[in-house]
Amino acid sequence: MTKLEKMGQKAVEASRITAKLKINDKNNALSAIARAIVDDTDKIMAANKKDIEAAEAAGMKEGLVDRLRLTPERIQGMAEGISKLVSLDDPVGEVLGMWERPNGLKIGQKRVPIGVIGIIYESRPNVTLDAFGLCFKAGNAVILKGGSDAINSNMAITKVIRETLEAGGLTPDCIQLIESTDRAVTTEFMHLSDYVDVLIPRGGAGLIKAVVNNATIPVIETGTGNCHVYVDATADFEMALNIIENAKTQRIGVCNACESLLVHKDIADRFIPLLAERLYKHNVEIRGDEKSRTIVPDFKTASDEDYATEYLDYIVSLKVVDDVDEAISHINKYNTGHSESIVTKDYDNAQKFLDEVDAAAVYVNASTRFTDGFEFGFGAEIGISTQKLHARGPMGLKALTSTKYIIYGSGQTR
Amino acid sequence: MTKLEKMGQKAVEASRITAKLKINDKNNALSAIARAIVDDTDKIMAANKKDIEAAEAAGMKEGLVDRLRLTPERIQGMAEGISKLVSLDDPVGEVLGMWERPNGLKIGQKRVPIGVIGIIYESRPNVTLDAFGLCFKAGNAVILKGGSDAINSNMAITKVIRETLEAGGLTPDCIQLIESTDRAVTTEFMHLSDYVDVLIPRGGAGLIKAVVNNATIPVIETGTGNCHVYVDATADFEMALNIIENAKTQRIGVCNACESLLVHKDIADRFIPLLAERLYKHNVEIRGDEKSRTIVPDFKTASDEDYATEYLDYIVSLKVVDDVDEAISHINKYNTGHSESIVTKDYDNAQKFLDEVDAAAVYVNASTRFTDGFEFGFGAEIGISTQKLHARGPMGLKALTSTKYIIYGSGQTR
Repeated sequence: MTKLEKMGQKAVEASRITAKLKINDKNNALSAIARAIVDDTDKIMAANKKDIEAAEAAGMKEGLVDRLRLTPERIQGMAEGISKLVSLDDPVGEVLGMWERPNGLKIGQKRVPIGVIGIIYESRPNVTLDAFGLCFKAGNAVILKGGSDAINSNMAITKVIRETLEAGGLTPDCIQLIESTDRAVTTEFMHLSDYVDVLIPRGGAGLIKAVVNNATIPVIETGTGNCHVYVDATADFEMALNIIENAKTQRIGVCNACESLLVHKDIADRFIPLLAERLYKHNVEIRGDEKSRTIVPDFKTASDEDYATEYLDYIVSLKVVDDVDEAISHINKYNTGHSESIVTKDYDNAQKFLDEVDAAAVYVNASTRFTDGFEFGFGAEIGISTQKLHARGPMGLKALTSTKYIIYGSGQTR
Repeated sequence: MTKLEKMGQKAVEASRITAKLKINDKNNALSAIARAIVDDTDKIMAANKKDIEAAEAAGMKEGLVDRLRLTPERIQGMAEGISKLVSLDDPVGEVLGMWERPNGLKIGQKRVPIGVIGIIYESRPNVTLDAFGLCFKAGNAVILKGGSDAINSNMAITKVIRETLEAGGLTPDCIQLIESTDRAVTTEFMHLSDYVDVLIPRGGAGLIKAVVNNATIPVIETGTGNCHVYVDATADFEMALNIIENAKTQRIGVCNACESLLVHKDIADRFIPLLAERLYKHNVEIRGDEKSRTIVPDFKTASDEDYATEYLDYIVSLKVVDDVDEAISHINKYNTGHSESIVTKDYDNAQKFLDEVDAAAVYVNASTRFTDGFEFGFGAEIGISTQKLHARGPMGLKALTSTKYIIYGSGQTR
């Protein structure tokens, strides 16, 4: 049995225990961990300092160093995130339905923890605490594999969590960290299907693709967002401009930011100059089709590739369309199944857009930026799924559960 | 673009159309297909004859030839299966919930088709019609890859379906069959993640393992069943014997058949001889632990491997346990997460077993043989999932759907 298989076995054993924990036990543990993380700020900072020094010595880019860096304020923020989980309802135990069959069998479907969740993530030490907290609240055990640049920080945070769990009489194996930074170990982890029920990669497109392509464990894919706003012929111009400004510029590097705009031909002449004026205030570069460039000639030309690109930058693509049908088929061709919005006063077009656009979240008259577990009211978020299996859209605690059928009989045979 | 990528693209286009179909359109098409399949019995039989002749010439085992063989009665039965789908409710369109956020956004979660479903299966031509019917009723397009020994039968059945769809004004690309019998094409199919949303392997453990290990598309794994019946100290003996007889012998080759028995030590002396008597009537071989062999010395000795084996045969393993806790931990160690049953009159032990056994279906006082989409009242079944993501247990039409969030706003920005 390899070292990783032993970790897997311990995780399965721990998951049997976490699955049985009552909500108060889980909440008490989370509160204790939040306090311990703040109390041990100095130790965590010291470990993080090693990671930062090594990263800087290796010439890591400042943006990456920044996301690796912990400060007392960031540690405080991480602890507050865990404390907030305490107020959320237990996702486990709910019976989603129960029915009686003609033979008298009573069949119910009950929400249960998934079991063992594997998380593979980049060098962001805050994910260590955050991912553990979400998985634990949903009754699961976790095995974490963080980016190797954050290894000292991750070990320090994991140590605090494990010690606090143990002090509270719980098994520390609710959380295990893969300390090896060997790539072969990561590959072995992705094949640990005898012990791990699901893998969730958290990070950029490259990491997610590597996990999807290599894992034999089921993966929940959180994905990229090539999100559109379509301005229909009857749109309120001011509303459309506000929504686009918000969706494009409020935070450019996130998956629910708008990357592409569609404008109905009947309003293009009047709307597009106002659009350019509004976006130019934020220095957004606009790449348009031929029609839009006859209206505002200083737009760059949009290529097919532009329409397929998630810029995550102050750039947006633009296309004039004949009607809502062309808007829908353009979106279904180029989108990544994340978030799409129509701005309209037309009832039929609103319904058609909601019905026919194929995405996790489809909006009428609102910014795509709302696709988020907190904005949706889930109180937590492990990521935004762009796949269609298991969970689609923002994933809260329920996405970290499964179900089982419980059947009450009185001697039935078939 | 490869031939398979073109098929993928056509399937995506067809899925946009099937997703919009109303329930009556889908039902009319299914009824027409059921009629056409029966009307074209001769053509289908002629194609099947070619497959049978080739299989016999190649020396295929009689059991495999039998599952490849179609008869007019079997074709009639396949058509009736499709007709039965007509009476089922449309799984698509239901809004599972809608809530209003403090900012006025109304967020609803709506059930939608998955999109494009890939099915990889063995040489059972009935699956061609059955899998298409289920996927289509749930609004999806399918790409099928059947066993190469059934290629002529599958082509004939697919042709009837496509012609009937087209005659009814629908796109025939709701169903496409991969005709190539080249293994490289199957591998390419398992990587067609740009077009196919989910792969469902239908067949034996080897096929399923190959798909899980090779696919980059999300897989719904239908699995093996090492199912247990635990006879508790307070069990009604006659009920326990009936349940075990049914679970073990009613149909031996199925995944919800019982493969292993656990008996409480306090009743072992009295119960095990009765058990042997009952199972010996069906010529079931019993492999027991030391304790049980002191009671009935002619039992063979059960090894650790026996406890982990899904026999699918007239063999069962047996172990005497100290209490319900030992029964639960033995089951959680050896089971495959399928179906488990306790026979007891003890309320606390029944609840404990339901709570703590980790399986898709957990029974009190009933045969494990009820784990089935029809027996559960779903009216259809695409398989029984033993994984914890997306769908667990018998999968009906709802397992072939996803959800999307629909959001009604009035100009909200973040």
